[in-house]
Amino acid sequence: MQSILTGSQAELSLWTEDSIVSKAHTPAIQDLYPDDFAHCFGCGRHNAVGHQLKSFVDGEEVVAHFLPAPHHISVPGFVYGGLLASLVDCHGMATAAAAAELAAGRQIGDGPAPRYVTASLHVEYLKPTILGGELEIRARVKERSERKAIVAVTVSAAGSVTVRGEVVAVRMPSSMGSPAAVSM
Amino acid sequence: MQSILTGSQAELSLWTEDSIVSKAHTPAIQDLYPDDFAHCFGCGRHNAVGHQLKSFVDGEEVVAHFLPAPHHISVPGFVYGGLLASLVDCHGMATAAAAAELAAGRQIGDGPAPRYVTASLHVEYLKPTILGGELEIRARVKERSERKAIVAVTVSAAGSVTVRGEVVAVRMPSSMGSPAAVSM
Repeated sequence: MQSILTGSQAELSLWTEDSIVSKAHTPAIQDLYPDDFAHCFGCGRHNAVGHQLKSFVDGEEVVAHFLPAPHHISVPGFVYGGLLASLVDCHGMATAAAAAELAAGRQIGDGPAPRYVTASLHVEYLKPTILGGELEIRARVKERSERKAIVAVTVSAAGSVTVRGEVVAVRMPSSMGSPAAVSM
Repeated sequence: MQSILTGSQAELSLWTEDSIVSKAHTPAIQDLYPDDFAHCFGCGRHNAVGHQLKSFVDGEEVVAHFLPAPHHISVPGFVYGGLLASLVDCHGMATAAAAAELAAGRQIGDGPAPRYVTASLHVEYLKPTILGGELEIRARVKERSERKAIVAVTVSAAGSVTVRGEVVAVRMPSSMGSPAAVSM
C-alpha cells in the first residue's frame, strides 16, 4: 500500500500499511482539530450552519463525501463552483494535517490534528458537476515539509472526476490564533 | 479614463468615458442575468439563501461589497477562505459579462448580461481577512476573446488587499443550459 505522502521525504516510511486504518475505524480528521480551530464554515464541527465536511484516511488517499443542498447551484441542475472550491480547500487542509500526524509517527486519532490554513487554492472545473448525488472528494499530498504541504484534490460526481484542485497548506500563523469569541 | 479591458483588442475603444456610468446609476450586473441564470448560490437574485453578490461597473474596474456573516469564518475572527473564493468566482464572472456587453457596443443595462461560467479559479491568500467589516471586491479583465476572459480580482478588508485571485471565464456551454427545475 502506498502512502498519501508521494514526495521524496524521510517521513514516507512512517506511513506504512500497519499504520493505516480504514475510515470505518478512524475519526474524521476535522473532528480531531482543537476546539478553538473547529468553527470553520467548511468543516468545523462547532459551526452549526456550516458544511461540516468530514475527511478520512483511506489507504493512500484521504476521502470525503458531501451531498450538496438543492440551493448549492450555479445554474439549475449543477453544483455551485464556489462550494466545490470550498470542498477542495477544507479537504486539502485535512489531508495536510493527516500527513503531518503520520509523518510525526502518530496514528490518526492519537491526539489533536495540527492546524493548517490555505496559502493558495487552484481549481479547474473540467466539466459541469451535476447536482443530485453525493460527491466524492479525494486528495493526496504531492509535497510536504515541516511548514507546508501541496495537496492534489479531485471531486467526482457519479464516478466521474469533474474538478481537479491543488492547495498549498501552511501551518497556521500565530496571528490567527487569537481566542476571539464568535457568535453564530 | 481607462477601460477594464486592459488587453490589446479591437473592442477597447468601445468602452470610453462616455459609455461608463457610475455604479449609482447602473444596475448590478447579476441583476441583468436572464431569469434561468439567476439561481447561483453566490450571486443569483433568485437564490433566497445564497450570498446574492452584486457587482457594478466602477470606472475602469468592476466593484462589489460584501459583509460576511458571523458564521463565515475559518477560525474565530477571520473570514472563511471558501467564501472568499466564492466572491472571487462570482465577481469574476460578472466582470467578464460586463466586458462582453461593453465590447459589443451595449451599455450595462441595455439588455440581459451574457452567461459566463468558471473554467478555472486561482486564489492567493496573502494574509488573514479579518471578520467584522464590509469587504471590497475589485476586478478587471486581463485578456478576453469572444469565448473567454481572464479576470484579475482582489478582495480588501479595511482598505488592505488580503486576497488576489484570477479566474478564467468561458461562455456557458449549451450542456448547462437545460431548463431543469430546482427547488430551494
